[in-house]
Amino acid sequence: MNKTTAIYLDNAATTSLDERVLEAMLPYLRNHFGNPSSVHKHGREVRVAIEKARKTVASLLNVSPGEIFFTSGGTEADNTAIHGAVEALGLTQIISSPLEHHAVLHAAEVCAHAKKIPLRLLHVDGTGNLDVDQLATLLEENPKSLVTLMEGNNEIGNLTDLQVIGDLCKRFGAFFHSDTVQTVGHFPHNLRSLPVDAISAAAHKFHGPKGVGFLYVKKDRRIKPYLHGGSQERNMRGGTENVPGIMGLAKALELGYAEMDAHTAHIKQLKSHFIQRMRHLIPGIQFNGKSGDLDQSLYTVVSVSFPPSPSNQGMLLFNLDLSGISASGGSACSSGAVLGSHVLQALNASPERESVRFSFSRFNTLEELNYTVEKLQELYT
Amino acid sequence: MNKTTAIYLDNAATTSLDERVLEAMLPYLRNHFGNPSSVHKHGREVRVAIEKARKTVASLLNVSPGEIFFTSGGTEADNTAIHGAVEALGLTQIISSPLEHHAVLHAAEVCAHAKKIPLRLLHVDGTGNLDVDQLATLLEENPKSLVTLMEGNNEIGNLTDLQVIGDLCKRFGAFFHSDTVQTVGHFPHNLRSLPVDAISAAAHKFHGPKGVGFLYVKKDRRIKPYLHGGSQERNMRGGTENVPGIMGLAKALELGYAEMDAHTAHIKQLKSHFIQRMRHLIPGIQFNGKSGDLDQSLYTVVSVSFPPSPSNQGMLLFNLDLSGISASGGSACSSGAVLGSHVLQALNASPERESVRFSFSRFNTLEELNYTVEKLQELYT
Repeated sequence: MNKTTAIYLDNAATTSLDERVLEAMLPYLRNHFGNPSSVHKHGREVRVAIEKARKTVASLLNVSPGEIFFTSGGTEADNTAIHGAVEALGLTQIISSPLEHHAVLHAAEVCAHAKKIPLRLLHVDGTGNLDVDQLATLLEENPKSLVTLMEGNNEIGNLTDLQVIGDLCKRFGAFFHSDTVQTVGHFPHNLRSLPVDAISAAAHKFHGPKGVGFLYVKKDRRIKPYLHGGSQERNMRGGTENVPGIMGLAKALELGYAEMDAHTAHIKQLKSHFIQRMRHLIPGIQFNGKSGDLDQSLYTVVSVSFPPSPSNQGMLLFNLDLSGISASGGSACSSGAVLGSHVLQALNASPERESVRFSFSRFNTLEELNYTVEKLQELYT
Repeated sequence: MNKTTAIYLDNAATTSLDERVLEAMLPYLRNHFGNPSSVHKHGREVRVAIEKARKTVASLLNVSPGEIFFTSGGTEADNTAIHGAVEALGLTQIISSPLEHHAVLHAAEVCAHAKKIPLRLLHVDGTGNLDVDQLATLLEENPKSLVTLMEGNNEIGNLTDLQVIGDLCKRFGAFFHSDTVQTVGHFPHNLRSLPVDAISAAAHKFHGPKGVGFLYVKKDRRIKPYLHGGSQERNMRGGTENVPGIMGLAKALELGYAEMDAHTAHIKQLKSHFIQRMRHLIPGIQFNGKSGDLDQSLYTVVSVSFPPSPSNQGMLLFNLDLSGISASGGSACSSGAVLGSHVLQALNASPERESVRFSFSRFNTLEELNYTVEKLQELYT
């Protein structure tokens, strides 16, 4: 590897578009440009394609096509689920956690404020375990609740067992939404049996295009739309459909499922090797959340906490970038120009230590990770 | 023209993607896939591209880049403008018209309901003229109003003079938003001098991609976001940016402006020719709204009202489609499975007559229109 090295280890932020996904999109960027709401030939051929894409997505998740609503991405899906469920079902409490993505946290804050209902954030311990007993107590006090808890944490990789949380919600009749942006396409989901009422996904997190995602909502839990306009998406989402995006999303999810076993094995091996090398070569490192534990975290994410180092103070990411390695920051500092990570703060991470999130994809290689560890070792000696 | 004829006259619904726009998008679908929020090389190169696109759009509209916010399309822009202005400025009345697109009407209804404020729809006459005196009276009664009136009507082509409405709004200090989805890229906009506080646009209406649009908001009229999440778009719109879409939007707008004179002349000639031939060959036809008047309507749209015809009853669009001609419906019927057009109903159009909207683009030819008139003549003899 030389000066022009470009190692991409920020796949939890976004992934590269699979060439086969682009191939699936191109006909809808070129010839099939009609508006799916038009009843003529130009419109019908596109409507057929969209509904086929919806069927693909639904069948991979084992649900009905009528339960899949295409959106502009994960953020819109989260906003719609939260506002739409509270509005439609007259819910009077929102329960979430301080580890959620801002798309959930901020949407929940705005919704709670607008509806004058409380937003309760579950306690978490130093590794990010949610206080499930507290959740049970809150639901017992007020079962007319929206519970929104992510499946895979984008910063520290922690996995939440949707079955456990879902069973609890079901027992009390609460509405359970999960931001599954980091897990869809990477882990299998059998939504027919999983006790979850709604999930959100974004195509660009699993080698699909940016600007498109979907919201799944269980048939008997109909919620209100959030983007109001035309009668698209069965009156659930106004706006001309992002047709090429939808075609790309379906293709990316199809590939994600078809190749899931192979990719999971490959990436797990990378992560395991990376952790081992780091532990061996860089004294004093720790792993945030459960990201050092292969079985309890996203296999795509490892969040590394580096010991205080005068030579790297605040410059670690910058130095990695200079070496051609793209990774993401994340610190517990709460002041200064650069806002700290609300997730690391919630874990009471030491502001003295610098954290870097490395996130992998099937396109990464062992060679890239060895080079990265080598560079980190240089920076820490 | 033969059996495989495919004449596309539904450009107000959506337009084909210009091949040059696709070329501008492809590098961002292939190599430059980074997340613009990432600070490393992969992210920075994309951030630079997006900000360049924002500058392009801003400079064409003669505003500052900080006043342009990219969205997932016109519907999201309309929803954001309406909710965001009412929320931020504490407005206590919404004024609109029955001729607006559902993205405005439904968003305004939902917002008015949530905020418990009145939504007033201006009276319109049989050709779609707005009652401007009524607007003045309403503003006098309550200047803390949001006025949302479209520039070019998507069904009947009527143009509203934004200067006149804007001056009135400015006089009373009301917030003026205009859905300019049908005019951006087709007419010049000098937003520095135009008294309008916010406009909405969708790229796919001017040969750009579906799934992307923008909202312009005047600097000193900061509104609240609608999609809550990350700090993208200067905290005005959460969600990873649709990077290829944004690149396509900017390129499409650039081309729209560069070639506007030529395209306008070409399409005006088409529309004029079409109207003339129709008037000459099909007895009893009329034009809805002002769409028969070249100077008072979108040059891209003509809405034709056909006399009652036993042989075509409700089948006109279907028969055109069989002849390989794609156009849009629009009837004044208010019952039955197919919902009628709320715009034609507001004009008190006769439910006996069948309406078809033909909408043109620079890719249409005189030959296509002659063929279309020929087919219509056959259907009406």
